[in-house]
Amino acid sequence: MKIRISSNNIKSAVKKVFSAADKRGNIPILSNILFEAEDNILKLTATNLEIGVSTFIDCEVTESGKTTVNAQKCAKLFSSLIGEEFEVETDDSKLIVKSANSRFSLATLPPEEFPEIEFPESFGVKLSSSDIDRAIKKVSYAVSKDEARYILTGVYFRSFGDKIHAVATDGHRLALFEMKAEAEEFSSIIPRKALSELKKLLKESDEIELLGKENKIFFRIGDTLFWSSVIDGEYPDYMAVIPEDNPLECIAIREELVNALKEVSVIYDKEEIRAVILNLTPGNLRLIARKMELDSASEEAEVNIPVEYSGEEFEIGFNINHLLEAVSSFDGDTIKILMDQPISPVLIVSEEEPELKNVIMPMKV
Amino acid sequence: MKIRISSNNIKSAVKKVFSAADKRGNIPILSNILFEAEDNILKLTATNLEIGVSTFIDCEVTESGKTTVNAQKCAKLFSSLIGEEFEVETDDSKLIVKSANSRFSLATLPPEEFPEIEFPESFGVKLSSSDIDRAIKKVSYAVSKDEARYILTGVYFRSFGDKIHAVATDGHRLALFEMKAEAEEFSSIIPRKALSELKKLLKESDEIELLGKENKIFFRIGDTLFWSSVIDGEYPDYMAVIPEDNPLECIAIREELVNALKEVSVIYDKEEIRAVILNLTPGNLRLIARKMELDSASEEAEVNIPVEYSGEEFEIGFNINHLLEAVSSFDGDTIKILMDQPISPVLIVSEEEPELKNVIMPMKV
Repeated sequence: MKIRISSNNIKSAVKKVFSAADKRGNIPILSNILFEAEDNILKLTATNLEIGVSTFIDCEVTESGKTTVNAQKCAKLFSSLIGEEFEVETDDSKLIVKSANSRFSLATLPPEEFPEIEFPESFGVKLSSSDIDRAIKKVSYAVSKDEARYILTGVYFRSFGDKIHAVATDGHRLALFEMKAEAEEFSSIIPRKALSELKKLLKESDEIELLGKENKIFFRIGDTLFWSSVIDGEYPDYMAVIPEDNPLECIAIREELVNALKEVSVIYDKEEIRAVILNLTPGNLRLIARKMELDSASEEAEVNIPVEYSGEEFEIGFNINHLLEAVSSFDGDTIKILMDQPISPVLIVSEEEPELKNVIMPMKV
Repeated sequence: MKIRISSNNIKSAVKKVFSAADKRGNIPILSNILFEAEDNILKLTATNLEIGVSTFIDCEVTESGKTTVNAQKCAKLFSSLIGEEFEVETDDSKLIVKSANSRFSLATLPPEEFPEIEFPESFGVKLSSSDIDRAIKKVSYAVSKDEARYILTGVYFRSFGDKIHAVATDGHRLALFEMKAEAEEFSSIIPRKALSELKKLLKESDEIELLGKENKIFFRIGDTLFWSSVIDGEYPDYMAVIPEDNPLECIAIREELVNALKEVSVIYDKEEIRAVILNLTPGNLRLIARKMELDSASEEAEVNIPVEYSGEEFEIGFNINHLLEAVSSFDGDTIKILMDQPISPVLIVSEEEPELKNVIMPMKV
């Protein structure tokens, strides 16, 4: 292999693929990036067998060929190397990288050891990159971190009719984001880590294509291909847990509620259960946090904010972080909290962002 | 105690003192801030018995008094609390903080338990804040992190004639920064941690005053007082190790040398000894880094930069981090490396910054 490549091209290509390489280093070849040069195109690939990225870049290929080099080292080298253009070539078991005034000789591993992944020729679903970006951003907070609830450790994507739903839940709260798209019917649970890698690639193109196939999901984003293994299993019936008919309605300025929640939470230290009581009276929401300790060092915080509420006095408790994350996931100026009983699920929505719904279970306090 | 205080005043005052409080919490009173209100002044104090900060702020005192409250909680509360003005008052064993729409009740500890530190009435030395700020910034990198070499874990300040020297060394490299000041003669080894706390307070005033007394050093910075315990012992004779007569001179563009050092260091992984060889020939400096491994996966990096050098070919090795930190500590465009033998100390200076000298021991390679 022998190529001449512009500095910017190789820098951005290495940046795209390197974080898909294995960081633990148990299987050395998975810590490497596969370089494949042919027909004036350099293809870079990295995979940890859970996700994978390939990207294609223009370059001048003098001699076709393949090799693999450590991903971390590649990323460090190309991000710090100065120069307009580099020469990259194999020499025995080394990869030689040359700029005008420097020369690097890096260890390689045989490209034959690198796992092959076949990408599909065509993809079934087209989606706007900004929709999928927002979907990931909006629902990821509700994904379960509990490996014992494996099914819930990913975001569930489901297309039906002209809609695609992105759903996340950890059993205590649920977030649902709805997108419009003409798509073949499909559903897939994509691991949270894979989505955060995918998110980094989205700015490359306005539109992405995707296809679920066997136990994987494949994405095409401009000149970059991304795949992830998917979580195998049946996702819970999320539509059944969304309480659409809760009668009690409280409308708050979102920023005021976020600030009030942050204010009352200052009395808590890190390790405690952090509860907040919402006391509603007409026109007013009082947030109360109490820290009880055996040595009578109990502390208390109370913050009042004006809200639209016209029902009878009503009190309900929440895990303060759950409520804060649900409210913070919206972008609009106001949010609406829809409640029924102090122990039944609460729906949080915003008129400015009807595509997002958050459900949260109260806490007994 | 009962006061009314502006939000900005209490926020900035708490921010100044809170990091001097004890974070481990073994002695609860040391995790607290002492509030003392009298004559329309609120004094806040925090100390971990190694360092201490007091600051004075204007407020409306309705009732004089004292109390102590957890420092972390105070910092969290006042940084997140919204409002122009707060009422702060004691109520039994609680401190009550009120804004227009909120009320916080915090646990306290008796102020009598809080350690008393007497600050001196007058200070012996006046110094420009920006000088001391630069001195700390320039030499701190060379302070020893080895607790077994206790004497070297601080910066040595020494005034004599019209000069003050700030010196740091870990036995392998040494940094010396010289300031002008008319001052009483004094010398003191100030722990590195204390200096990083002091540094945060320096922007408060253009001038600071200081006084060494018993085993402490006291600083006055505007309305804030800072003290630190000092390291007891005799600092090595640093002037004796500065090689003023090294005959070989190499002048380099500082940024080019920094970049070249970063470039060659990419072949190293975290855990290795990171050496760099400097090969000098007239007009050229070649930097070489080699990573040798038993399995023949040896890797090599070479970067050339133009320099002013007119002697015979000369080769010398360094710990790459030591050389990078020494060169990076300068601000000017060029630096001068003064050498003698491949195993004798090297002096690094810059014509643009004659107040700073760095000495570094080479490494056998």
